[in-house]
Amino acid sequence: VKKSDVVRAILPLHLRKEPAQAQGLAFAPTNIALVKYWGKRNTELNLAYTSSLSIALPDQGALTKVNLHEGKQDQVVLNGNEIANNTEFFKRIAEFLNLFRFQSAWHFNIDIQMNIPVAAGLASSACGFASLTLALKDLFAWPLRFQELSILARLGSGSAARSLWQGFVEWHSGASADGMDSYAEPLTATWPSLCVAILAFSDQAKPISSREAMQATVNSSALYQCWVQKATHDLALLKQAIHNQQFPLFGGTAESNALNMHATMLSSWPPICYFLPATLAAMHEIWSLRQQGLELYFTEDAGPNLKLLFLEKDASAVKQHFPQIEVLRVFE
Amino acid sequence: VKKSDVVRAILPLHLRKEPAQAQGLAFAPTNIALVKYWGKRNTELNLAYTSSLSIALPDQGALTKVNLHEGKQDQVVLNGNEIANNTEFFKRIAEFLNLFRFQSAWHFNIDIQMNIPVAAGLASSACGFASLTLALKDLFAWPLRFQELSILARLGSGSAARSLWQGFVEWHSGASADGMDSYAEPLTATWPSLCVAILAFSDQAKPISSREAMQATVNSSALYQCWVQKATHDLALLKQAIHNQQFPLFGGTAESNALNMHATMLSSWPPICYFLPATLAAMHEIWSLRQQGLELYFTEDAGPNLKLLFLEKDASAVKQHFPQIEVLRVFE
Repeated sequence: VKKSDVVRAILPLHLRKEPAQAQGLAFAPTNIALVKYWGKRNTELNLAYTSSLSIALPDQGALTKVNLHEGKQDQVVLNGNEIANNTEFFKRIAEFLNLFRFQSAWHFNIDIQMNIPVAAGLASSACGFASLTLALKDLFAWPLRFQELSILARLGSGSAARSLWQGFVEWHSGASADGMDSYAEPLTATWPSLCVAILAFSDQAKPISSREAMQATVNSSALYQCWVQKATHDLALLKQAIHNQQFPLFGGTAESNALNMHATMLSSWPPICYFLPATLAAMHEIWSLRQQGLELYFTEDAGPNLKLLFLEKDASAVKQHFPQIEVLRVFE
Repeated sequence: VKKSDVVRAILPLHLRKEPAQAQGLAFAPTNIALVKYWGKRNTELNLAYTSSLSIALPDQGALTKVNLHEGKQDQVVLNGNEIANNTEFFKRIAEFLNLFRFQSAWHFNIDIQMNIPVAAGLASSACGFASLTLALKDLFAWPLRFQELSILARLGSGSAARSLWQGFVEWHSGASADGMDSYAEPLTATWPSLCVAILAFSDQAKPISSREAMQATVNSSALYQCWVQKATHDLALLKQAIHNQQFPLFGGTAESNALNMHATMLSSWPPICYFLPATLAAMHEIWSLRQQGLELYFTEDAGPNLKLLFLEKDASAVKQHFPQIEVLRVFE
């Protein structure tokens, strides 16, 4: 099964024939996975071994404009800078756009404004491909349900499947070979007192992309099979914690899941380690604060930065220990 | 099965009735596990889930003197300082000595000289209990084979089973409930050009003892079952590497095994992490040096220090990058 087969099944030909308006425009938030996506059962279609669950950051993400233009190739502008066509970033976007060209002569102008550090483990490709998918929907006025848009966004980047909504979002791994059952959906639950803060140590590009790192983990970690079971178990626990608003279970499950993912990477060969010394120092500090009674947990993606999880009642205490953070209320 | 049952099976009563001389004296080297022991299938008898393989550090270890004395309780002196009888260290030694008291009125004087930092992940309990076992053998003139002495040393500390020999030593996990098949044996192979160096970051006592940490890992890590399989696989690989003197396979297997053990700890809840920021900085440096072609690997035990593994040909290059180390030739 190819990506183009999936697009064909979702989008009848007449819906791709011409734009409904001059420009498509859409915003998609970045998301932080609380139960992680790590490892693909199908690398062509970005189908995950496990289901995952994320929280959106309401005001951080990507705003994308898209229109057809007369040029000989696509043009991609990120935060005002044109991206060279020999970069990995350009190639991934152009390859995604290939799925939606009715004629090969069609070329797109893409203008992406992101207000998050690019490639620092803050899921820039998730909000990037999600906003591009939504902007294309806007341009062509596709009459698609969000479930189908989630499948299309996934073809660009796995975690983009989760970036179409605010709040808690679950991406079902699905089981079918064509991935038509592998899409995300929002949870109805909210948690108004929940806070998130990004504890950043580096905005440098990662030494290894998450795309490469997860495949290297699947191929070389002896612990991977156990990780799959752990993630499945964590998803059930996290949904229970959200349903009952049990914060220690919520934070503990998210932190344990993140540490298990990084453990699985560390067990790969060659070893994969996104921790910097500063990351580790902050982890030790968080564990020590927690021992002193502060309900503070963290998660970490494929990058050195930590994302802190806490409740509004503890926001000022957390801010006192980490003055550099901006406290984000995710349900406001 | 109790420890005392094992002692009874190995040592007939008449062999424990009286000392053969006034004092027993013995040295045992510390050992560095290259395939780790992490997790007990039986905590009373210190029976491991997996077999392990270590290398002895020839000149570092414990020299122990033991004699019976008239006092009302045991006396333990470590590096010239008397150990208080309410410490964990004293209690573990007194409990071990209980196994060898012919009459309850018997008390021992134990004098241990260790030339390694105590409780900093350098297997002080391994060489401590191994030397104490050998010193008792000397005192009583037990006509035991080393295999039986290894079983007795194990009752004090699991890794002590491996500290009775120089060079490479394999501890068979065994399968029987009484552990009579769980003892160590030396490998015949040597590797004269093999070098080891300790890269120390802290000689402070560990935040959590390896004894507690391994049990917490067994009880709470979702990755533990996969670790058991990994360790079993690594043991076969390492023996092959030693047999064929294939250094990258040797170093790579040892490093991967250590990282998998630490990964399994990190996946426990609450998380267990012996890495300090300085440990992690050194790991990143070693990975970077290796990418540049230097055949340098590391292993790490339940502490923040790294043990570097390299060949004599690279000793000066390694020393240039880590000037603080002392290069140890383990087969000299």
